[in-house]
Amino acid sequence: MDKPKAHKTALHEKEGIAQPESVSLDAIEHVTKLRKIQPTAQELVNGILKGDKTALSRAITLVESTNPAHLEKANDVINQCLPYADKSLRIGITGVPGVGKSTFIEAFGKHLTSLGRKVAVLAVDPSSSLSHGSILGDKTRMEELVKDENAYIRPSASGDTLGGVARKTREAIILCEACGFDTIVIETVGVGQSETAVHSMVDFFLLLKISGAGDELQGIKRGIMEMADLIVINKADGDNIKRARLAKTEFNRALHLFPAKNSGWQPTVTTCSAVTHDGIPEVWKTINDYFDLTKANNYFNFHRSEQNSYWLTETINEQLKSNFYSRKDIADLLEQNKKAVQNSEISPFTAASILLEKYFSK
Amino acid sequence: MDKPKAHKTALHEKEGIAQPESVSLDAIEHVTKLRKIQPTAQELVNGILKGDKTALSRAITLVESTNPAHLEKANDVINQCLPYADKSLRIGITGVPGVGKSTFIEAFGKHLTSLGRKVAVLAVDPSSSLSHGSILGDKTRMEELVKDENAYIRPSASGDTLGGVARKTREAIILCEACGFDTIVIETVGVGQSETAVHSMVDFFLLLKISGAGDELQGIKRGIMEMADLIVINKADGDNIKRARLAKTEFNRALHLFPAKNSGWQPTVTTCSAVTHDGIPEVWKTINDYFDLTKANNYFNFHRSEQNSYWLTETINEQLKSNFYSRKDIADLLEQNKKAVQNSEISPFTAASILLEKYFSK
Repeated sequence: MDKPKAHKTALHEKEGIAQPESVSLDAIEHVTKLRKIQPTAQELVNGILKGDKTALSRAITLVESTNPAHLEKANDVINQCLPYADKSLRIGITGVPGVGKSTFIEAFGKHLTSLGRKVAVLAVDPSSSLSHGSILGDKTRMEELVKDENAYIRPSASGDTLGGVARKTREAIILCEACGFDTIVIETVGVGQSETAVHSMVDFFLLLKISGAGDELQGIKRGIMEMADLIVINKADGDNIKRARLAKTEFNRALHLFPAKNSGWQPTVTTCSAVTHDGIPEVWKTINDYFDLTKANNYFNFHRSEQNSYWLTETINEQLKSNFYSRKDIADLLEQNKKAVQNSEISPFTAASILLEKYFSK
Repeated sequence: MDKPKAHKTALHEKEGIAQPESVSLDAIEHVTKLRKIQPTAQELVNGILKGDKTALSRAITLVESTNPAHLEKANDVINQCLPYADKSLRIGITGVPGVGKSTFIEAFGKHLTSLGRKVAVLAVDPSSSLSHGSILGDKTRMEELVKDENAYIRPSASGDTLGGVARKTREAIILCEACGFDTIVIETVGVGQSETAVHSMVDFFLLLKISGAGDELQGIKRGIMEMADLIVINKADGDNIKRARLAKTEFNRALHLFPAKNSGWQPTVTTCSAVTHDGIPEVWKTINDYFDLTKANNYFNFHRSEQNSYWLTETINEQLKSNFYSRKDIADLLEQNKKAVQNSEISPFTAASILLEKYFSK
């Protein structure tokens, strides 16, 4: 600690005796040393492959790191884990706030672990960097599941862009699989395009709903119905049972309006109660039917391979755009041209040529 | 002409007398001279603004040209026409083959010209470079409309990519508007993403259907229903009238399943017969209601400005991708990495980094 300075005022105090250090220097040295001993990539991989949840968490933290220095190590861990990944069932779950996602995932997850499965729960929530984790942030929401040794719950990765959050989640899936988790549940609250991102990283997509005031289908986000492999109407208990059944009929009718899926699967609707656990085993049975079908007709493998190609192209395209739009001179010129285009002073295509010429000339 | 060569074989022929030139040199010189006298950009613009359809056609041909030397002149014409454009109603029409699009557009177009409107019909058909113009290629399909001095019909621009075809069509719209056409009809047969492209360049989107064997909604392409502002059930004549009315009811119910549109417009369903002309005036009335609503609530202008921004960004993004994927060294490396990704040897994100590093290092 610095000595107090001498003051030339009436409030001057005598210097007094030297104060003892409030923190032991030995202790500081010890902690600093510990912090520096980051596990190597190899150590993390070994831990993950042994099923060590601490190693898994550290590796996911590494993957989520925005420090460019960590990128190479993270890629190394991922690529070493890849041969052991790809063996789980990946299930996406979405639903608006209030639909009971956490309670459902807890009941569903406990059912799976009771059958001997190992369940990892991840979340995609691009809003969490603002709201500081609006989903899964509070692990106590899944009190039982979090204590289950065959379950692993990881709050949403934060990030500025959906692309960044999605990449981190997708890599976390690989790590969880290498760690021995055979069922990965990806939760999303459906902000922006996050459902599309989750849909492109899972095998099965579950839409959670509750029965409402009759006009069930109004207010469903564009495209979500078409993505769903299963619609589960939650809170089908007590006074709600009748309404839930009516909602089931209405959703079933609506599902038949959509074109057949490439998977050969006809989406279905079921009701459940995450509180009484009624219907939870049936949800799992339906998901199993889906996997039986798509593994038999080889859609499962085809789809995963397509998803890998998609993420390769998607990442490249995002980076190409990011490189263009983040350049200061381009951003200024774009601003200027956007105005001219909106005022019909030049055509969008001429404006694009001007911008691209500038970009590629440098 | 070259003289025949002397042969040293048994088939040797005497040289004979010099042949006269089969084409008059004077004539060749005359034609070549004429060809060189291309109208200047200014001449084209003047012609277009006077309502000259020949100048319009020549300008559209210039815009469609793949010769890079024509690009600057084309951009010049477009940008000079821009201040006179933007004043028409742009209507997109889609429907599968067999639904009667040509007959409908002819009946609809004739109705509009009878009301004093000037109608231009363009087409977006990215398949036309292969099929040599599968829609509008044969102008005689619209025998009456093509003879109408207040109508202009232009077959689909050909091109390798939808992006290219869409750009050309969008610029043709501007030229038609500057030429005084106040109603632009864009037809598409709905190959690939062409409906989305057309939807992003029109104010109003019309889906043409015929009544089928009861299950009307099956087989409708993903997303098309959500785009439609009006569904018209064509061929509602003779024995078909009852079925067309049933189809109308079914589509009406289905339309209500979709979320409300930003335009504030509730899509509707109507029946018509392009043969008897029953229902054609009602289609036009509905479209007018739409324009009354969206001009009053200012969605019309907002939407056009959004579309301009969309095309600016879209063109830039397409070019950024095209520049990347067309580079030979990148294409080879991509091929290699795609295989590794599909075999789960490396993660899609690592593969993307490798490719991007190569791209930006040069």
